[in-house]
Amino acid sequence: MAKRLSSSPDYTSLLDKYDTWLFDCDGVLWQGDRLVEGVPEVLNLLRTHKKRILFVTNNATKSRKSYKKKFDQLGLEARVDEVFGSAYASAVYISTVMKMPKHKKVYVVGMKGLEEELEEEGIQHLGGTDPADNTLAEFHLKDFQPDPDVGALSKAFTYLRRNPGCVFLATNIDSTYPSADGLLPGAGSISAPLACALGREPLSIGKPAETMMDCIKAKYQFDPARAIMVGDRLNTDIEFGNRGGLSTLLVLTGITHESEVVGPSASTTIPTYLTNSIGDLRAAIS
Amino acid sequence: MAKRLSSSPDYTSLLDKYDTWLFDCDGVLWQGDRLVEGVPEVLNLLRTHKKRILFVTNNATKSRKSYKKKFDQLGLEARVDEVFGSAYASAVYISTVMKMPKHKKVYVVGMKGLEEELEEEGIQHLGGTDPADNTLAEFHLKDFQPDPDVGALSKAFTYLRRNPGCVFLATNIDSTYPSADGLLPGAGSISAPLACALGREPLSIGKPAETMMDCIKAKYQFDPARAIMVGDRLNTDIEFGNRGGLSTLLVLTGITHESEVVGPSASTTIPTYLTNSIGDLRAAIS
Repeated sequence: MAKRLSSSPDYTSLLDKYDTWLFDCDGVLWQGDRLVEGVPEVLNLLRTHKKRILFVTNNATKSRKSYKKKFDQLGLEARVDEVFGSAYASAVYISTVMKMPKHKKVYVVGMKGLEEELEEEGIQHLGGTDPADNTLAEFHLKDFQPDPDVGALSKAFTYLRRNPGCVFLATNIDSTYPSADGLLPGAGSISAPLACALGREPLSIGKPAETMMDCIKAKYQFDPARAIMVGDRLNTDIEFGNRGGLSTLLVLTGITHESEVVGPSASTTIPTYLTNSIGDLRAAIS
Repeated sequence: MAKRLSSSPDYTSLLDKYDTWLFDCDGVLWQGDRLVEGVPEVLNLLRTHKKRILFVTNNATKSRKSYKKKFDQLGLEARVDEVFGSAYASAVYISTVMKMPKHKKVYVVGMKGLEEELEEEGIQHLGGTDPADNTLAEFHLKDFQPDPDVGALSKAFTYLRRNPGCVFLATNIDSTYPSADGLLPGAGSISAPLACALGREPLSIGKPAETMMDCIKAKYQFDPARAIMVGDRLNTDIEFGNRGGLSTLLVLTGITHESEVVGPSASTTIPTYLTNSIGDLRAAIS
């Protein structure tokens, strides 16, 4: 069962135990465009204690560079090399694990952030934001305008059916994601039509997959016993940390309700710790 | 086990046994824009013998009226009231089974044919071919242009999540459909992202669902024991006929290979009869 953190010594002990802190972002540090209360102080506390901080997100709509801008806008300190997004991890996977030959191309059903990360890794791509394949208007619940479309479904399907050895990768398979105005369909919903038509599932790169952890470990060596993953989703963040042998801290500022962690209908994925909000760690500020 | 038809008496006996003939179209009467050999003669034979002919298709991109035009173009006799499409069946389901109040609206993720059928039933609709929600270019493998997009995904998701009692209907859940140039993602692939994001499946109207049979029976009374469903798909056509208590005839001009019907890895859905092509029935022409 998850240990419920509540007292000041609980949080101080957490600070002592872990050197490396991996954070999910949406639902942990912010909710849409609203910063979770206390986040600047807590990140500052960790930096003051010389903790390594990494931001690990399944959001594949942004490159690390544009994700860093989001930190800037919210007034949070972050370096590009502290950010691990599933778009970046996918590009790294394609270049270093698959070792895709340079003359081959990736057909993108996705957004500019994914294209940017592919370009950073020197990977050629098609589709994506090409106007022939897409309309580019973004979807915001409050404006109620169309989302980036997946008109390229039939193209992607045809490549995957007809090109021998064509690999079906998903940046992540989250069914939904929390926007500023509420839940919207996530990347898992974008690959679902392809999975349905092809009758097979994609290889998913983002949390909870090991490929994301491999990508982080290729850059930073750390002792899992002294590392903690902080997240709001049991089936991605907490599962990811647990699989990697890290400790895990579930916060309730995002998608998971406490009833999913304690009580008779609790999930089989159990975090090491549970607290209401990452802001609770301010109790460790002496 | 399915009875393999091959001799002239086999086909003559079939003609004697059944008064009502239900036909799937794609993969049975035609393959894309190519007529299956012998189809005009066979349909003519059935009409000469005063058989009732019904065309039962899951294709939801066309209204019955525009489907009738396809028959005209291919030089086949057909009346609009002989055609049962899943777009039509969905409209009938909404108006007569759901009895949706007239001030309520259907949000369409689909094409003009579906809108036409809704309008015929006096049902108000949104989305669909509205330029704000869609690009309208059609996908043909040979031109390799974008398909009708599903940019309205987030809208549909939001209606279904937030409107109490909002019903999630699919015209059909075929994962693929056979175009003139090969397989393309079917309607099941279009509802898959919504099913994924919502975490629940739609109510499907087309074959093999009973809703389609109810729709046909509301118009034509027939004795199932003297009716036969002819199709090329085990999990839609043959399942549909079997569930309805009809005899079933599988043809091999479409999606199913003979190995799926006979032998150790055969499907559990078993047609009454099996023949290579509907054109084989010409053997019954005296």
